[in-house]
Amino acid sequence: MGPHPAVAAIRLAVRRVLHDVLTLAPPAAVPSAAGDRPPLVLVACSGGADSMALASALAFEAPRLGIRAGGVTVDHGLQEGSDLRASEVAIRLAAFGLDPVETVAVTVGRDGGPEAAARDARYTALDAVADRLGAAAVLLGHTRDDQAETVLLGLARGSGIRSLSGMATASGVGGRYRRPFLGLDRQTARKACLVQSLPVWDDPHNADPAYTRSRVRHEALPVLEKALGKGVVEALARTAQLSRDDADALDSWAAAVEPSVRDDSGGLEVAKLFALPPAVRRRVIRRAVIEAGSPAGSLFARHIEEVDRLITGWRGQGAINLPGRVAVRRQGGRLVLRQG
Amino acid sequence: MGPHPAVAAIRLAVRRVLHDVLTLAPPAAVPSAAGDRPPLVLVACSGGADSMALASALAFEAPRLGIRAGGVTVDHGLQEGSDLRASEVAIRLAAFGLDPVETVAVTVGRDGGPEAAARDARYTALDAVADRLGAAAVLLGHTRDDQAETVLLGLARGSGIRSLSGMATASGVGGRYRRPFLGLDRQTARKACLVQSLPVWDDPHNADPAYTRSRVRHEALPVLEKALGKGVVEALARTAQLSRDDADALDSWAAAVEPSVRDDSGGLEVAKLFALPPAVRRRVIRRAVIEAGSPAGSLFARHIEEVDRLITGWRGQGAINLPGRVAVRRQGGRLVLRQG
Repeated sequence: MGPHPAVAAIRLAVRRVLHDVLTLAPPAAVPSAAGDRPPLVLVACSGGADSMALASALAFEAPRLGIRAGGVTVDHGLQEGSDLRASEVAIRLAAFGLDPVETVAVTVGRDGGPEAAARDARYTALDAVADRLGAAAVLLGHTRDDQAETVLLGLARGSGIRSLSGMATASGVGGRYRRPFLGLDRQTARKACLVQSLPVWDDPHNADPAYTRSRVRHEALPVLEKALGKGVVEALARTAQLSRDDADALDSWAAAVEPSVRDDSGGLEVAKLFALPPAVRRRVIRRAVIEAGSPAGSLFARHIEEVDRLITGWRGQGAINLPGRVAVRRQGGRLVLRQG
Repeated sequence: MGPHPAVAAIRLAVRRVLHDVLTLAPPAAVPSAAGDRPPLVLVACSGGADSMALASALAFEAPRLGIRAGGVTVDHGLQEGSDLRASEVAIRLAAFGLDPVETVAVTVGRDGGPEAAARDARYTALDAVADRLGAAAVLLGHTRDDQAETVLLGLARGSGIRSLSGMATASGVGGRYRRPFLGLDRQTARKACLVQSLPVWDDPHNADPAYTRSRVRHEALPVLEKALGKGVVEALARTAQLSRDDADALDSWAAAVEPSVRDDSGGLEVAKLFALPPAVRRRVIRRAVIEAGSPAGSLFARHIEEVDRLITGWRGQGAINLPGRVAVRRQGGRLVLRQG
C-alpha cells in the first residue's frame, strides 16, 4: 500500500525539484570547501503546515537521491516567545533527520511596510545561511493559494503584467530558491501533515486583518470564489504563469531594440520610439530611466506614462522629474536623460 | 457659471471622442447615399444612468461640432413590459433633440449563457441600425467600473492577458463602437443625471445575483476594495489598458515570426518554434491552429499548452485533437495540422 495521496503529491513535487537541482545545479553551486560531499538542499520552515509538509517530503526524498537535506527556521522576533517557537521548529526538523538544522534570529525593519520588511529580513538571512553552508537550493513552501493571493495583491497595484506574474518556481541568485508546491493547493499540504501526524503551527499573523495578505486570504478570495466560481485560485495561478512568460518576452524585445533607438550621445530618438508598439516603447523608456539612475522599485506606471507623453502627446512640456533625481526632457527629436 | 463638474466631465469625455471621430473617420464610413450630410453619431441607450448621461452629453456636444446625433434603444424582450420601457427611453432620447431615434426588438438566444447571448443579440442589432443609417460611430456608456468588472471576469477565465484587457475605447468594424466613459466612474454618470434631473432606470438584472457580473459588482468588488484599498477599480482599469497593449505587441510579434517557422508544406518546424520565447511560441501555435480551422472562441489555454508539449515535452505523444476537428501531430521535426 502506497502513501496517502496527499503525501504522495507533496513527495512527487519535491522529487521533481530535486531531480532538477541535480541536473541543473552547476558543481560551482557547491563551494570547493565542500569537497566531494553530496549537494545540500535546505528547506525554509516556519512550522506552518505548508513548510512542515515540505520538510517532511524533503527528508523522505533527499536520501533516495543521494542529496543531503538540511533545514532553517527564521525567528522574526515579532511575537512574544518567537525564539521558543523557532527552537521547537528546529527540534522537529532535526527529528525528520534533517542535518544541519539552523535557527536564525533577524531584526525586522520598517521599509515598505511590515510584510515587505519581514520578507526582506528573511531572505537576507536565508541567503547568508545558504552561502555559508554551500547549499545548492533552498526550498520554500509557497502553494498555489499563496500564488493566487500574490496575483491579487499585484493586481491592486495596477502596474502591469509583471506585477501579475506572482512568484517564480525558481528565483534568487542562480535560481537558488525553489517553490515545489506552487502547483499544489494549501489543503493538500495540510492534509499531508494531518495523515503524517505532524504538529503544525498557525501563525496568528496569517489571520490578522491588519495584514493585507490576510485580508486577501480570508475575505477577498472566498468572496471572489463565490462570485466567479470555484476555479478562481487556479485561474489566478495560471494567469501568473502566462503573465510571467509574456512579461519576459516583452522585456527581451525591449532589451533587443534599445540600442537601436539610442543616438551617438546616448539620447533616445523620438521618431524611432514612436514607431515601436506602445508596450515595447514603455519598456524601453523604463530601461533607459533605470539606467540613468532611477531606482526600479520607485518607478511606477504613471512615471513612464508621463515620459511617454513627451513622445505621443508633445505640446512643449518641460522636464519630467523622476525618482532618483533623474530628469527627462525632449530636445529636438530626442529624449535626454540626466541625473541631477 | 459653468455646468456642474459631473456634467462638465461627461461632456468633455464625449467631446474628445467626437473630435476623434471627425478626424479619423474616413469619408467611406458615411455611405455615399448620405451624400453631403454631416456625419451621424448614435448613442446606444438602455435608459440606465450611464447611457442616459451619455445621451445627454452627445445631444449637447454634437450640434456644436456640426455632427448629427441619433439614438438607439434595444428591447431584449427578457422582462415583462420591456417593450414599453424601450418606448419610454426612445421618447426621452427624442426629447434631448436626438434624431433619428430607433427602438429595436431582438430575440435573445442561449449560446454562451444569458449575458453573452444578450450581448450578441444587442451588437447584431446595433450593427444593423448603424449600417442602415450610415452612422460614423455608436457611443456606448461603459464606465471605468464596468471595465474593472470585465477585468475580474476575464481573470476568472485564467486564459492570459488578452482576457485581462477588458473593453477597448474603440472596437468593432473600423472602430465603430466608442466608449467615451471608460475613464469615468459610474458615480460621475449618475451624478450628471441627478443634477440634470434626468430620470434613470435601474435594470433589475444589474442587481440580480443570478448574473455573474452582478455578483462581481455587488459582492466581489466591494470586498476587494475593503481588502486591497480604494484604488482597486482604477488599478483594474489600468491593468486592462496595459494588458491590451502588451497583448497587441505580442500578437504582432507572433504574426511577424509565423511565416519563418513554416516549412514548404505549411508544417511548423519544431526547432524554430523551440527557439522562440514561450509567450510568442504559444501565440504562433494559436494562430496556426485557428488557421487550420479551430474556432478561436473554443480554444483555451490548456489546448495550446497540450500542443506546446509536443515541442517542449516530447515523449512520443499521439495526435492532439482540438475544437473544430483539428488534429496536431508531430512528424519528425515538424508539427502537422489537419482538419478532419
